[in-house]
Amino acid sequence: RYGYFGKDKPEVVRLLLCNLSGCLTDGQIYMSADGLEMVSLNTRDSLGIRMLQKEGVEVIVLSSSDNPIPKLMGEKLSKQIGCEIRHNVEEKLTEVERLRKDRGLVWKEVAFMGNDEPDVHCLNLAGLSAVPLDAPLVSLNAAKYTCHSAAGRGALREFAEHILLLKKKAKSQMEQDRIHRDTF
Amino acid sequence: RYGYFGKDKPEVVRLLLCNLSGCLTDGQIYMSADGLEMVSLNTRDSLGIRMLQKEGVEVIVLSSSDNPIPKLMGEKLSKQIGCEIRHNVEEKLTEVERLRKDRGLVWKEVAFMGNDEPDVHCLNLAGLSAVPLDAPLVSLNAAKYTCHSAAGRGALREFAEHILLLKKKAKSQMEQDRIHRDTF
Amino acid sequence: RYGYFGKDKPEVVRLLLCNLSGCLTDGQIYMSADGLEMVSLNTRDSLGIRMLQKEGVEVIVLSSSDNPIPKLMGEKLSKQIGCEIRHNVEEKLTEVERLRKDRGLVWKEVAFMGNDEPDVHCLNLAGLSAVPLDAPLVSLNAAKYTCHSAAGRGALREFAEHILLLKKKAKSQMEQDRIHRDTF
Amino acid sequence: RYGYFGKDKPEVVRLLLCNLSGCLTDGQIYMSADGLEMVSLNTRDSLGIRMLQKEGVEVIVLSSSDNPIPKLMGEKLSKQIGCEIRHNVEEKLTEVERLRKDRGLVWKEVAFMGNDEPDVHCLNLAGLSAVPLDAPLVSLNAAKYTCHSAAGRGALREFAEHILLLKKKAKSQMEQDRIHRDTF
Repeated sequence: RYGYFGKDKPEVVRLLLCNLSGCLTDGQIYMSADGLEMVSLNTRDSLGIRMLQKEGVEVIVLSSSDNPIPKLMGEKLSKQIGCEIRHNVEEKLTEVERLRKDRGLVWKEVAFMGNDEPDVHCLNLAGLSAVPLDAPLVSLNAAKYTCHSAAGRGALREFAEHILLLKKKAKSQMEQDRIHRDTF
Repeated sequence: RYGYFGKDKPEVVRLLLCNLSGCLTDGQIYMSADGLEMVSLNTRDSLGIRMLQKEGVEVIVLSSSDNPIPKLMGEKLSKQIGCEIRHNVEEKLTEVERLRKDRGLVWKEVAFMGNDEPDVHCLNLAGLSAVPLDAPLVSLNAAKYTCHSAAGRGALREFAEHILLLKKKAKSQMEQDRIHRDTF
Repeated sequence: RYGYFGKDKPEVVRLLLCNLSGCLTDGQIYMSADGLEMVSLNTRDSLGIRMLQKEGVEVIVLSSSDNPIPKLMGEKLSKQIGCEIRHNVEEKLTEVERLRKDRGLVWKEVAFMGNDEPDVHCLNLAGLSAVPLDAPLVSLNAAKYTCHSAAGRGALREFAEHILLLKKKAKSQMEQDRIHRDTF
Repeated sequence: RYGYFGKDKPEVVRLLLCNLSGCLTDGQIYMSADGLEMVSLNTRDSLGIRMLQKEGVEVIVLSSSDNPIPKLMGEKLSKQIGCEIRHNVEEKLTEVERLRKDRGLVWKEVAFMGNDEPDVHCLNLAGLSAVPLDAPLVSLNAAKYTCHSAAGRGALREFAEHILLLKKKAKSQMEQDRIHRDTF
């Protein structure tokens, strides 16, 4: 209660980083004989991204170098979800650290959604972190929040609501603290 | 029991409005590298629309401006489900109010199926309203009926059966009232 | 036990009729902006058809006129599942009656898998009948067997195993009856 | 405990054989009117294959002659999962025996993932064997391990983790035995 004295900046999420494959998509890659490759997105997750952006949270989607997305597809996906996609991310932690420092943020202000072993460090470090319901055990254990929705079926939307709820609570707590400060 | 005296018009649904994305589809958008975009419909839902039309209920599908459907795709979808699709709906309530008034209907005669935050007003106002099983909490709370089927997997069909059952009950109740009136 | 005296023909299924959409497929139709239309089949169901054919059961798939399948697609589907597809079936019962009589079969020798209201008559009449797990109530009530698998996800395969098991039982029962007859 | 004396070679899996259709894919084949055919893979399963390879387990995927995959599609799938696919396998057991003997392995060193009746022999013989959650009863009964994940939705990944866990246990057991041997 007293920690907020002399400090107005709320400790809330300002940046959400999220995997493309296995978080925003369900991890399925559709392939045809003549070289067509498809993935699918859910409009509910796109809406979740918009909800965060409207509340001032920057959203960046990370695409791993393990599952490279063709350039044109990346552009279409980016347009559909309405945010930037970073392609060919080799080392998740390195990339997330760079993005965090570039924005002058502390880990408490970063939310991270991952779904597998390479995401464990970020899941541990981020102020808020989540995995979809169907994530493997190794990432389930590291995440602070396990979604009730599966990957590519609203998991990001659910995490977005979770983030916004906590943000609202933090703000109202700070507001109350300010009142206490002014009163006594 | 007495309210029906001197009034023959049954208070039953005459118009069903339903979201395209997230109600009639499961919200998934399939995307390929070369710009192909796909959505999927379930034949069970198309049958539900036909069942309603056969009983004199008009069905109109609403497509939001957030997820614009290419023109040719819209025409194909419309042909598949056998009813009109209104494209680029910006404000759900405004559009629904316009459609309702154009037909001289009261809210009790309108059924609405939605699936997210922008649908809350209509879910509250419509005489009958429903959301698919997998809808976010905000819309679940506003809907009068929660389907056991998920979006794009028979939710509309289920709601159609619900509407027709209530319509049948209302008619038989009115019939009984008429008999009472004539008898006493 | 005595009913089989003087009658050697086993009362077992010789013909299986099954809906294409909503039984063999999951009812989903995928549509793109440029007119591409897709449906999906499960290899497990194709294997079920082969199992029945190997035991002398003829399999014919019925495609309703409500959801016409393009000609080329029909040919590809037919090749994939390894049996005939009857297209543009208008009245299910009429078509099934015709197929049954053409083969000189009684209803007890016909198995039928359906999934909706137009299938109710056939589900009631057929010696063995089934619906997928996710079929609407109206057909669930008429079917003698409800699959644990959903449409397009192994329901036909499951029904095939059910048919073959009963066929085996009937045969062993007749064998026993024959022994009894010879002994006493 | 005494069995390891004089024998240093660990009894752990060195080769994993897995069905393409119904294990690595969910068995769905998507078909369009103009001859397009698609299957889907999950990136989680691809990651499972990489995990095994990194620990020195060779992975080979078997594609049955019942569901022939077009050549170009096979090449794309093979590249996506990062391992060899054997096409047109007629008799599962014959092929697996050949692969096993070519590498001078005993059955204890072979892991096998199957999903249907033609796989029963291999499921029985392999040192470790598994089926996806949604496999038919005949293969469920033969497998030593039943995955909690469905085919094409992480079943292979789950089996990979199971194999690596047992491999680790076997190694640590052998290490302990070696210490015992040296101490007494």
